[in-house]
Parts: sequence; structure tokens; C-alpha cells
Amino acid sequence: MKDVQQQRDYRNIPINKVGIKNLRYPILVLDRQNGSQATVAVINMYVDLPHQYKGTHMSRFVEMLNMFRDQICSLKTFSTILKEMKNHLNAASSQIEVTFPYFIEKKAPVSGVSGLMDYTCGFYGTSLEDDSLDLISEVIVPISSVCPCSKAISDHGAHNQRGEVRLQTRFKRFFWIEDLIQLVEQSASCDVYSVLKRMDEKYVTERSFQNPKFVEDIVRDIAQQLLIDDNITWFAVSVENFESIHNHSAYAYISNNKKNLQ
Amino acid sequence: MKDVQQQRDYRNIPINKVGIKNLRYPILVLDRQNGSQATVAVINMYVDLPHQYKGTHMSRFVEMLNMFRDQICSLKTFSTILKEMKNHLNAASSQIEVTFPYFIEKKAPVSGVSGLMDYTCGFYGTSLEDDSLDLISEVIVPISSVCPCSKAISDHGAHNQRGEVRLQTRFKRFFWIEDLIQLVEQSASCDVYSVLKRMDEKYVTERSFQNPKFVEDIVRDIAQQLLIDDNITWFAVSVENFESIHNHSAYAYISNNKKNLQ
Amino acid sequence: MKDVQQQRDYRNIPINKVGIKNLRYPILVLDRQNGSQATVAVINMYVDLPHQYKGTHMSRFVEMLNMFRDQICSLKTFSTILKEMKNHLNAASSQIEVTFPYFIEKKAPVSGVSGLMDYTCGFYGTSLEDDSLDLISEVIVPISSVCPCSKAISDHGAHNQRGEVRLQTRFKRFFWIEDLIQLVEQSASCDVYSVLKRMDEKYVTERSFQNPKFVEDIVRDIAQQLLIDDNITWFAVSVENFESIHNHSAYAYISNNKKNLQ
Amino acid sequence: MKDVQQQRDYRNIPINKVGIKNLRYPILVLDRQNGSQATVAVINMYVDLPHQYKGTHMSRFVEMLNMFRDQICSLKTFSTILKEMKNHLNAASSQIEVTFPYFIEKKAPVSGVSGLMDYTCGFYGTSLEDDSLDLISEVIVPISSVCPCSKAISDHGAHNQRGEVRLQTRFKRFFWIEDLIQLVEQSASCDVYSVLKRMDEKYVTERSFQNPKFVEDIVRDIAQQLLIDDNITWFAVSVENFESIHNHSAYAYISNNKKNLQ
Repeated sequence: MKDVQQQRDYRNIPINKVGIKNLRYPILVLDRQNGSQATVAVINMYVDLPHQYKGTHMSRFVEMLNMFRDQICSLKTFSTILKEMKNHLNAASSQIEVTFPYFIEKKAPVSGVSGLMDYTCGFYGTSLEDDSLDLISEVIVPISSVCPCSKAISDHGAHNQRGEVRLQTRFKRFFWIEDLIQLVEQSASCDVYSVLKRMDEKYVTERSFQNPKFVEDIVRDIAQQLLIDDNITWFAVSVENFESIHNHSAYAYISNNKKNLQ
Repeated sequence: MKDVQQQRDYRNIPINKVGIKNLRYPILVLDRQNGSQATVAVINMYVDLPHQYKGTHMSRFVEMLNMFRDQICSLKTFSTILKEMKNHLNAASSQIEVTFPYFIEKKAPVSGVSGLMDYTCGFYGTSLEDDSLDLISEVIVPISSVCPCSKAISDHGAHNQRGEVRLQTRFKRFFWIEDLIQLVEQSASCDVYSVLKRMDEKYVTERSFQNPKFVEDIVRDIAQQLLIDDNITWFAVSVENFESIHNHSAYAYISNNKKNLQ
Repeated sequence: MKDVQQQRDYRNIPINKVGIKNLRYPILVLDRQNGSQATVAVINMYVDLPHQYKGTHMSRFVEMLNMFRDQICSLKTFSTILKEMKNHLNAASSQIEVTFPYFIEKKAPVSGVSGLMDYTCGFYGTSLEDDSLDLISEVIVPISSVCPCSKAISDHGAHNQRGEVRLQTRFKRFFWIEDLIQLVEQSASCDVYSVLKRMDEKYVTERSFQNPKFVEDIVRDIAQQLLIDDNITWFAVSVENFESIHNHSAYAYISNNKKNLQ
Repeated sequence: MKDVQQQRDYRNIPINKVGIKNLRYPILVLDRQNGSQATVAVINMYVDLPHQYKGTHMSRFVEMLNMFRDQICSLKTFSTILKEMKNHLNAASSQIEVTFPYFIEKKAPVSGVSGLMDYTCGFYGTSLEDDSLDLISEVIVPISSVCPCSKAISDHGAHNQRGEVRLQTRFKRFFWIEDLIQLVEQSASCDVYSVLKRMDEKYVTERSFQNPKFVEDIVRDIAQQLLIDDNITWFAVSVENFESIHNHSAYAYISNNKKNLQ
């Protein structure tokens, strides 16, 4: 049977990325509390295509994924799968992007009632010709923020709202995403819970009110902590507030390698 | 050229709705302030298909839409287009669903600074065999709500958030969607603006705080006003609060024809 | 601490549904091949609220969900949780809506290479005052369809595209969603796979081409099989084709209880 | 009234981008056929914030937008608004991102029946300290593609599907987005229409079938034309095919400044 993909291409144009996108797939991820956690990812996989080939073999991406199906999605698995992608597809570089909901058991602050908080996490890995792995880890964390301006100028109350922090990091050594999530949550006016009883609701309302923060404050407070963490070599952090007084968002973003900031 | 759609079908199964879905289209809608407003709609158009026909002629839906392109999307246009759909497609019933962003110039409550608030509106029309038109009008209105429980139990502050009210109505006589939107906005803890200067922010913060409402309160306050409006023959109203203390929504819904409630 | 929700309400308006919406939650579902399957759901939970109460207690919904966390999401669990919701929230009716991705191991038609196909499934349960359970099961199945008109009038080829079938059913006895999915897949021009080698691609291309179907054909073929299945008491089925020659969809929908059709 | 934003910040961390996000707004854009076109945009506006300031003044973004409300969104308006943003917000850099549906009247290829095709377009402008404007223009174009492998190995037919091309360009002189859209459409197996009569459907089916292309072919054919257009100084182009035989996409991407490719 003819292999059209394998044919010689004469346009002389290499392709940066070619592969599959938006594949839903069940995965296992590391979970500090329970060893591992079953969740459902959306996965993209790409390789480069040298100028002389007409096409890549798309079915091999899914086959490789199936080979790693029962393994926990870890740094080591990522590294191995990226190398395999280059081998099986004769490519010089490979990329894999995995995003998934992640659940952490979290106790309400006063009653101690336990609930499952959901976060969206991601891993973005690239392998170049020398097999070096560039890995970016991402957490998307819902938060609560109280407006400092509204609090300062109003006789009582202050507008507040749900926000979303997106934090991407490059790092030297393994770390738990639980720690990144906690760092983000502690930088908000207050963190967000799945179950709050009345005594907890009183607590989070008062804590938020005593702790008003603009989107500008939240990105800066997160940046400040990442700057002194020598395991983090690069980060990009954004905060989007779904303003309760507007129908649009307030937004702030800091991205930098640490040399530029210090 | 063969007309496959026209062929006789022997499965003996009529089809309730067949047509086109998710067509983006520029439209003109009535605007109380400016006469008309240009916006961009997403449109669905369906007819029924009697059991004896294999298929409908999909291209005619778009052609009919093109015929009405420069006309303002009004009750009369709706009625005419629904009749034309039945004629051109030999159908006993026809349906058209149109949703679009709608903008209203709105002044900030203290400074009077003007801005454009965006709402999502919809018209859902059905024409049956006797040419009677069943029309549902929809407005989706962003609002602000302050939690009465949080306010009552906390020493200061109260959690609040953006919410979204979705109101559908059937009615006897023409009315302005501006009036429905205003009715919804006045039932919230406070309405939402596109521009607020500091003096306005103080006003909306204090007004909200003095006016705490659960999702339950907001649907009921809206329902209460619709019940005494004799132009409204049916309504369905929901409120979804994007809770600032949770990562999920609080929700309430009342749907009823007025006889059942009174 | 004050219980604001518990207060008497004087507006005299009962609320049809009040509760939580868009909660992400890890669940276990029955899996014919493997006993059970871990996946991630989006969950809505509602009860009615009698006119005399100001509010419901939102935190109890999540607490009840946590009580059932390690149990497989089955007919029995659904029935129990719906009763518990009525008890714990003093309500006459309760509703739960659960949607989730579901994976089935599926072999390519010629090579036999195995892959995981993803479907979106849902369960929608309502319990009324007499504790009777109304349960609707939903499957959303990606399919491939070849246009019969395009094939009939063209010298070669025929436009085809990905489509999506949404099938909801009410039923008398337990059945496997795998069977509903299979019924849908066999009614398309061809079903869809996660891995296809070249010999498989030849097979699905040729099978599709020999089996052209309009959206009208697909809904009718599905309806025809459900009509003779005496376990199904009601169904609603739609097909949406993401047309490859247009930027909008073709759509067909049949909804009926079986008495009306026969 | 206190100006909290104006306060001195001591964290010593500048912010790359701060502003508003996801604001819906009616705009006028240049239209080659009709002079101008009214549409509805989603707009983001950001400035940088030096380390010494606590916050930016979010309401000014919307006020500036309102000042330009009746002007056509052109290169000149972009340049002016970006300068105004820096002035009014004491910033060294400013950014504006505008995306919107755009409609072009397009005749069916044989019957000549006219319809409105919808595209999604975008302008992304950045102004730095020296007032130089960096502008990226984007078009997202729906297309049809026939698989060359499927055609080559099958006895008849070939799988095809809707795809989406996203093309971003930097350029020296003004050009019409209509020209970029046409360049993309001519690089697909066939372009997509809003109305096709039967004779047109025959034409597009046959033309597609004679013109099979992988995502790899489409990005390369587009890249090839941009490489010889000396008005284009940079481009990034991706093609995503919503495969009709899979439930995931095939994807290819080329991004490069022209020096690297030649």
C-alpha cells in the first residue's frame, strides 16, 4: 500500500510542529496524598518535519500514548515519551502538552469539613536534538479577591469576586504541584473551598476583607516568592478577576526569567 | 441533476426538526435609543420533515435569511420569515433561534460617565400549521450579588460576586428588551457597569452591601414583578452566581405559566 | 450564629430548582469491560424550595456528594442520593445531572490495533414526592457521515465530515451505555476511531463511501431501532454535522415517546 | 477620595501587562467592498506598570475606547489609541488586542448565488517607549481538506473534513484582510461557502477530490506564498483539521521570520 506521507517534498519548507491536537485521554498523575490520581487529560503531541518529507505518520502518536497508558505521568515518563516520539517519527524535536483537572482534599478553615477542590494543571514538554528536556509546569487556581480601592473609599463592604491565577514555571528539581497551588492560594485575598459551613463562611469573609488585593498585588506577591525560590528558573504568572462590578475582567501578568528581575 | 432529498422515504418516521445550526450572521435589531443597532447573531433555523421525504433542502434556509438581510429583526420579520420557511420547504412547522450581543449606553450612577453595557439577547420563534407565532424573548443580564448570610454572620464585609440572570418571556404585545433588562438589573444587589469612576465605585459598593440577596431572592423578586405584569403570559428565569468563595456556581430557577403561581 | 436561609419568606413564590451548578468532581462509573472506570464529571444538584423558606443550604449538596464519593455511580446510588437530598434539604423534589467523558477500548477494523475512544455521557435523575425516580441516560457519540447528494451528483468523491449524535433515553431496565453507543455508531456512514493504520483508513473510507447518509437518515435509522426496543420508553436524538463545505452545521432532531410514533 | 492605585509600592517588581480583558464592544472595521463594516469585538487592553506604583486606573481603558467609538478601526486609530493609553496611564508600553467576526459577500462557484461568509479576524498592537508600533494581523479561515493518503489507498472516495487555518502576519504596508483570506482559501483542497446549490456542491466536491492535501501541504503552500511576498516580514500559520475519521484534530504549524527560511 502506498505511503504518501513518506514521499519526497520539493517545496523546501520545514514544518515547526505537526501532530495531533485535542485528544481526550485518561491518565494517572502523581498525588502527594494518595500516591497517584486518575484523571482525564486533553493532549497535544507534535514533532518537527524536515523539509524533504511530505507528511508525518499521525497514527503513531496515539500508539505511543497507548504504550505509556498505565504509567504515571511523571518527569521520567515525559522524557521517555518525548525521545520515543523523535525515534518513531524520525524527528529532531518533539513536544507534548497535557492539561487535566486535579483534585486535592482540602479542609474548611474552621469546621474542618473536608471537600475536594478542583484545579486545572498542565505539563508542557519539549525535547530538542540533544535530548535535553524543557519542561513547563502549569497550575490554574481559582481564588477570591477583595478590591482595596472599594474598601478604602466605601463606608462599609467592598466588592470582591472570583479570580483565576495561571502560573507557569520552569524548575531545576522535582516539586509537588500541591506546593505551587498553596503558594498561589496564600497570595490571594482568600482561597476558595468546595464546602464551607457557616462558621467557615464567616472566617473567609472576614479574612478576605482584612486582606484586600488588586490583581497587581496578587501577581507581585506570587512573583516575590518565586524570585527567592532557587528551584524556579523561570515563571509567568497572570491573574484574571471576573469583576463583580463589571462584565469584563481585570488582568495582570508578570513573565520573566529571574536575571531580568533581580 | 438528481434531487436525492426529494426522494420518497419508506421508514415512516417524521422528523421534528431539520435545518441549519450555528450560522453567524450580521443583523439589525430594534434599539430604543437609536432606532436600530447592528450586531452579529448566531442563528438556527429548522422545519419539520414529513415521513415521506428523504431530506430537506438546506441551502434554502440561508437563501431565505439573505432575502431578509437588510430588514430589522422585528416581530413582523420573524413572522414573515417563519411563514416563508414553511412555504419554501413544504413544512407544517418552522422554527428560528437568534442570539446576539446587544449594547445599551448606560451612565455611571454618580459621575454620569457614559459607557456601553453588553447583554446577550435572543429570540426563539415557532410557527405552526395555522400560522400562529409562538415567540420567546430572552435576555441574559450580568449582575452583582452580595450574600445575605455572609453579611449577617461576619463582623465586616460580605462575599459578593458576578452573577448572570437568564430571563425568557412569552408576551401579548411588543415591549422593549431595554425594559426587561432594567427589571432584572433592579432586582439584583446592584447592576453592573462598563465604566465606574471612584465616586461610582463607592456608590455601587455601598448600595450592594445594603441590598444583600441570595440567588433565591433575585429569582423571586424578578418573578414577583412579572406576575403582576399582564403583558407577560409565561416566563422562565434563572440566576447563576459565580461564587467568590467556591469554584462552582449557586443557581436558582423559576419557570411557570402565571396560572400555576397565582 | 444566625441562619438566614431558614428565615420565613413572605413573597409566596415557590422555587422550582435551587442548588449548585458546574461542580467538577471525580467519579467512578460502571464499565462493561473492566468493572468500573475512573473519570471526572461536571455535576449539577437541585431541590425545589417551598414558598415559606428564604433559602436552601448550599453546602449540604457538596457534603452529600462527598458521602457517596467511593461508590460507583449506578441506578441505585442515584436513587439513594436523590432521596437523601430531599431528606437533608426538606424538599419535595430533587434533581442531579452528571456529565463525564467515558472511554471504551476499541479495535481498528482491519489491523485490530487497539485504542481508547472517548465519548461524553450523562445521567439526569429526578425524584418526586413519591420517591419515584425519573432517569434519563445520554450518550454523545462522534461519527463520520458522507453526503448522499454530493455522492450522487459528483463524478468522483463526496463531501464528508465529523458529526455528533446526542441520544437521550428513558428505559425500563438497566442497560449498558456501551450498547447505546454501538447502536449510534452502526447508524452512521462510519464510526470514528482513535487509531487507524493505513489498511484501516482504506476500510473506513470505502465503507463510508458505500454508506452515504444525511443527518435525516442517521436520526431516522437510530429512531427506527429504538422504536422496536421495548426497554426504551422515550428517546430524543439529534445529529449535528460539522459540514466540510460550510462553516455552519446541518442538524436533525427526533423526540418522541413511542406511542406518538407508532 | 483616596487614590489607592496611586500609592507607592515597595515590592520593587514591575508588571509587564495590566489592564482589562474580555470586554465586548461594537466596532467599525474597514471593508474593501462596502467601505466599512459594523461588527462586535472582544477587546483586551494592557499597559506596563513601573515597580513604584501600586496599581493602574482600570476605568481609563474603557474611557479611551469610548473616545474612539465612532472611528474606523484602522492602522492609524490603533497607533493613536496606543499612544493615548501610554499618556493617560503614565506607561512606557501599551497593548491592544481586538478580535471580531468579519463577513465577506461571496458567490457560489457555479450558480453565482451570493451569501455571507464569516471569518474571525484579529489585530494585536503593541507600542513601545519610542512610539514604534508593532502590529500583527490575524485571520481565522474555515476550509475543506481531502486526505491524500485516504484517496491514494482507497478504491473510491476519500475522507475529508472542515479545517481551520489561523494566519498571523507582520507587514510593511497596509493590505486588505480580504487578500489574506483569499490566499488561505486558495491553498486548501477547497474553500467553504455559506450557500451552495446542487451544481455548486458538485463543483466543490470534485474540486476537493482533485486537490487532496494534508495539513502539512496546506501550511507549506501558504508559507510558500508568504515567503515571496515582500510586504510580509513575519508570519505564523497553523492548520487544524477536525478529522472525520477521528475524534481529535490533525495539526501543523510554521512560524518564522523570513530570514530563517530563506
